[in-house]
Amino acid sequence: MALKYQLLATDGQARRGRLTTPHGVVETPAFMPVGTLGAVKGLTFQELEDAGASVMLANLYHLTLRPGIDVIERLGGIHAFTGWQRPILTDSGGYQVWSLSPLRKMSREGVVFKSHLDGSMVKFTPESVAESQARMGVDIAMMLDECPPYPIEKADAAKSLELTNHWAERARQAWPDEAGGGLFGIVQGSVFEDLRLRAARELTEMDFAGYAIGGVSVGEGIEHRRFAVECTTSALPEHKPRYLMGLGTPLDLLHGVQHGIDLFDCVMPARHARHGQLFTRDGVIKIKNARFKDDPTPIDPHSSWPLAQRYSRAFFHHLFKAKEITAPVLATLLNVRFYLDFMADLREGVELGTLATLAEEFVRRYTAGDPGSS
Amino acid sequence: MALKYQLLATDGQARRGRLTTPHGVVETPAFMPVGTLGAVKGLTFQELEDAGASVMLANLYHLTLRPGIDVIERLGGIHAFTGWQRPILTDSGGYQVWSLSPLRKMSREGVVFKSHLDGSMVKFTPESVAESQARMGVDIAMMLDECPPYPIEKADAAKSLELTNHWAERARQAWPDEAGGGLFGIVQGSVFEDLRLRAARELTEMDFAGYAIGGVSVGEGIEHRRFAVECTTSALPEHKPRYLMGLGTPLDLLHGVQHGIDLFDCVMPARHARHGQLFTRDGVIKIKNARFKDDPTPIDPHSSWPLAQRYSRAFFHHLFKAKEITAPVLATLLNVRFYLDFMADLREGVELGTLATLAEEFVRRYTAGDPGSS
Repeated sequence: MALKYQLLATDGQARRGRLTTPHGVVETPAFMPVGTLGAVKGLTFQELEDAGASVMLANLYHLTLRPGIDVIERLGGIHAFTGWQRPILTDSGGYQVWSLSPLRKMSREGVVFKSHLDGSMVKFTPESVAESQARMGVDIAMMLDECPPYPIEKADAAKSLELTNHWAERARQAWPDEAGGGLFGIVQGSVFEDLRLRAARELTEMDFAGYAIGGVSVGEGIEHRRFAVECTTSALPEHKPRYLMGLGTPLDLLHGVQHGIDLFDCVMPARHARHGQLFTRDGVIKIKNARFKDDPTPIDPHSSWPLAQRYSRAFFHHLFKAKEITAPVLATLLNVRFYLDFMADLREGVELGTLATLAEEFVRRYTAGDPGSS
Repeated sequence: MALKYQLLATDGQARRGRLTTPHGVVETPAFMPVGTLGAVKGLTFQELEDAGASVMLANLYHLTLRPGIDVIERLGGIHAFTGWQRPILTDSGGYQVWSLSPLRKMSREGVVFKSHLDGSMVKFTPESVAESQARMGVDIAMMLDECPPYPIEKADAAKSLELTNHWAERARQAWPDEAGGGLFGIVQGSVFEDLRLRAARELTEMDFAGYAIGGVSVGEGIEHRRFAVECTTSALPEHKPRYLMGLGTPLDLLHGVQHGIDLFDCVMPARHARHGQLFTRDGVIKIKNARFKDDPTPIDPHSSWPLAQRYSRAFFHHLFKAKEITAPVLATLLNVRFYLDFMADLREGVELGTLATLAEEFVRRYTAGDPGSS
């Protein structure tokens, strides 16, 4: 496998690492902005790079349906196609098959589903999904998995896990190690500790380039979610990167880092931005709140985004009230910056061995000061 | 008046000038990106500044209705409110009263109209409009005018012109010269040469800080429009800036510059961008056209926008097909850059006395190569 993970420092279970990929280095723990179709909603690559994004996430399900893997391959791969020159991770699309397709039929072989775009039938197998990602030249590929719903009976969760791990073996076999990037296994097992441990153990034996925790944030609640993270990370190999899929709030990210997670992705910064919810060190600002109409305070005096000092809360409020397209664009920039800055702080905390203090201070201020809750 | 216009060079009727305003210098001829509500759709101020925008246009009608002049004044004026630190010109809103308000009643006194937002009744007089712009601290204010429809009988155009020039006198009286910025008069007169000349003469006598040509691009067609521009500029004073309102295509801008226009604004770069029409030196690219699906060519190899080399036509096509918000954002950046770059070229042409050659070459290539017409 062409990925290289170096563990640089630890602080408790938290890890400060360096993931070397064909398209560059990712300092971990890292947050990956979500560019489902190859672009983060409303942002230019320049803005993402200026914000310090070292890796972007795109989605195989969406790219398969449009523009199609053939087009991307013909154009020289996903980096040439999109123009993004840093590492790219693609999600396998398993989750989207379940959440977006109007019709699907699953078997041990794979899944056949109806495109939500044009109604055509598409087949995903563990092999085809690995191969598609290799053909696009992604840096980090994800195996096809089944994401079980919640709540679920333990017997059903075990059955689903067995299918996922069967697919894992086939994906691992199908992945061309000469492709350059690396394939990650996905640990399922719902909220059941022994299933999570078994999944982690079996996948580890298959020797993936990295390991993801899937099947979280599907309605199981914060306690179950955190428990799943905690018991899974404890069973993962130390010398491989760990990716917590689809999470979450800043507090989720903090918890993940504290328990040894290296990679995160989440649509939350962009989705919150579209609804006028801005992440700051003092909590989430609901900028559409009438109290901000007259507020000349810079939108976030602590942001590393230079324009955050120039744009006032009153102006953001105005743009949101007027439903200007500029409103979600600026808010997304602010929120993505916040997530990336926060991860940079956490990396420093692990390096210096001050993560506990940093975490305490962050949580105190983030939860106490919430300027948008009143 | 606090505005200072220096005529630096001429080439035929074309002028290379420098307009000094309270918030900075505008090298003319200049294109003013349209930020109706204080922000150009989808762009950050950083992007606008990087693109070389030296002045932004906002709109009094919209800002009056939301957030209101009182709010903006309380927050320290339009620059403090928006965060844009360079010059701002506000349109008076006369045109919007006619085009957006569901109900209006005009009199010699002014116009009472119904807000298209909340149905409340609002009154604009020449005095109130001048005063509102002064209170916001704009660099260039526009007088309230009546924009007559087209076609129009000459007698009606004359009557409308008389009202506009009556309002001009009152606006000029009401404008506080100590406000810092300057008030522009607006030349009306539809397509009638003697009316345009009369309007220009009467306004010149009132000694405005600059003069605008209004009432164009209302359906009169290109020949009439160009004739109106040509006959009006010939009658305007040499030592004051001239602004052609709301135009237009690159060829319209070229014609305007060739006939002595100094300032332009137009929603076209942003509106075309939203429809997937991209301005390039080789004509307008209709990027949604199927032929671009596989096209690895940079979106515009000649753009000064660094990312225009990195984004492929195939990727733009993909983003537009997928209706990603990133599509109009990137396209607006590209188009606004094109307009600003084009004006920079024209400025250089006037300086060097090579405008005729430049114009010929531009028109040849722009009209011959149209890569979006097939």
